[in-house]
Amino acid sequence: MKLTERQFVEKLRRAARRRMGASTRRGLHLRQGIGDDCAVLSGAGKYDLLITTDLMLEGVHFRREWQQADSLGHKVLARGLSDIAAMGGIPRHAFLSLALPRGTDFRWVDQFFAGLFRLAESNGVTLAGGDTAASMSGVVADIVVIGEAPRRKAILRSGARPGDEIWVTGVLGGAAAGLDLLRQGKRIARRTQTLRPLFYPQPRLSIGRWLSRRGLASAMMDLSDGLSIDLARLCQASGVGACIDADAIPRLRRTPLEYALHGGEDFELLFTVSARRAGKIPTQVEGARLTRIGQIQRGRRLRLIRAGREEVLPVLGFEHF
Amino acid sequence: MKLTERQFVEKLRRAARRRMGASTRRGLHLRQGIGDDCAVLSGAGKYDLLITTDLMLEGVHFRREWQQADSLGHKVLARGLSDIAAMGGIPRHAFLSLALPRGTDFRWVDQFFAGLFRLAESNGVTLAGGDTAASMSGVVADIVVIGEAPRRKAILRSGARPGDEIWVTGVLGGAAAGLDLLRQGKRIARRTQTLRPLFYPQPRLSIGRWLSRRGLASAMMDLSDGLSIDLARLCQASGVGACIDADAIPRLRRTPLEYALHGGEDFELLFTVSARRAGKIPTQVEGARLTRIGQIQRGRRLRLIRAGREEVLPVLGFEHF
Repeated sequence: MKLTERQFVEKLRRAARRRMGASTRRGLHLRQGIGDDCAVLSGAGKYDLLITTDLMLEGVHFRREWQQADSLGHKVLARGLSDIAAMGGIPRHAFLSLALPRGTDFRWVDQFFAGLFRLAESNGVTLAGGDTAASMSGVVADIVVIGEAPRRKAILRSGARPGDEIWVTGVLGGAAAGLDLLRQGKRIARRTQTLRPLFYPQPRLSIGRWLSRRGLASAMMDLSDGLSIDLARLCQASGVGACIDADAIPRLRRTPLEYALHGGEDFELLFTVSARRAGKIPTQVEGARLTRIGQIQRGRRLRLIRAGREEVLPVLGFEHF
Repeated sequence: MKLTERQFVEKLRRAARRRMGASTRRGLHLRQGIGDDCAVLSGAGKYDLLITTDLMLEGVHFRREWQQADSLGHKVLARGLSDIAAMGGIPRHAFLSLALPRGTDFRWVDQFFAGLFRLAESNGVTLAGGDTAASMSGVVADIVVIGEAPRRKAILRSGARPGDEIWVTGVLGGAAAGLDLLRQGKRIARRTQTLRPLFYPQPRLSIGRWLSRRGLASAMMDLSDGLSIDLARLCQASGVGACIDADAIPRLRRTPLEYALHGGEDFELLFTVSARRAGKIPTQVEGARLTRIGQIQRGRRLRLIRAGREEVLPVLGFEHF
């Protein structure tokens, strides 16, 4: 199969759209389907429903020999929560489909759920259902998170306009730096600070809601696959181009620019703000840095200013296949 | 891991329940969590939300060499729809997480979606989102279906009372008979009538709704893992026992009783009806047979009347691990 993930998702979205006519007749209306961080369903109430699914496979998204069970449980849920954060939503319920190889150690399973429940509890999320199976190969985990956002207030990827400023939360490239350490086979304590961004990412729920309540973000998404590819997705959804400044991209000392540009799994928020409202964005919210890294432009080009020179932004993030 | 699936689900349910306190404060209230065909969420509107997830793995739930891609796409969605049917609900939106081995044939993917979309369309369901990934081993598909039922009208597993009659839709054992043919390696046309129950199960949505509208079923679930184990689950959820009559179990000529009792994937509905209302159940609804197969009893025992003698009902259905 020679499809890239983007082509595949595009293909699916078109197919799904062609078939959408049939089902707008009843209560739950699909406001946003395939192609954003969450699907958005509108019902009768004052809240829209946000729904996201995230699939993780051993050997593709993680290695059990590198990652402790509780961190995997944490991360499975964190991916879903981060998608809710990216819409400015409030997570409510999670559903987990979990396939385990026969003979999986009992304690591993307990620790997996300990990590998952700890994060769920601290965000007021219940595990409301799911499915279980035996796996012939590795661990498979698919998380579904259901959340809410005030009616019509979910922040989509498609709202960026030329002239908007581009902002990110936190620092980028931390997860890639952690992965790099593991790949080098360095003997490091698994709970060291350097590995926290990779093993215990903190979904930016409170910042997402803060931005949503104040109506500050014109578009938003989470950085799951890398800044360059995720920015390209936001720009595609909005029909715009962008220029970002390499020097402005927030990263820890000694984290290579490439990790901050193309490393996945940072789970920070990428958002845009109209020039008019940009003055209202502080440099810090809920304990995390907010940094302006560039500007949305007309056209479709993605550019990077590096060492004073403008170049094409290479789009190299993580494609799932 | 020595846990059976039932123990695992029970463990999860308890863990999830302990942690439920935190999240009953906002709009979406969890009416029914882990342990029924769907989770039931109540919001502000006149409808409750039904949510189900079903995980299918190549080599565990299906074999690609036996099953055509369009039938797999059909069946992945049919499993989810059947869970909605089991609550008497109306399916609305589906989300698919799909992992494909690198190099999966393009046409296979197209046919998979053709089968899925055909069933979706004929039931007014949209594909609203999902996730994709590369798989290191076989195909992995996790389907989420979101549906609706009028507020407080979803039919749970837990409502059966001593004296209720036990009914099933359609005929049982057809999928097991089809699987048996394939296992024997017989050369059969893959679209033959005998394989239809296995490859193209038809979720009993209209019957489920018919029963729900009339308030006839005290408890209901779908037969995904086999009559004996699924009846045991219904009885456990209701805190009752049951006695069923082997001669009454509807099956095609030449289908062994064992297949009808313990064969999975029939996706028929198993429901109970109070003695007072049993007279209102016709022998046929929406083109499918309805058959009374036994009675709910006090206590916890499950019994089978075979050749005029009462014995313990062996519980042998499909455990997922």
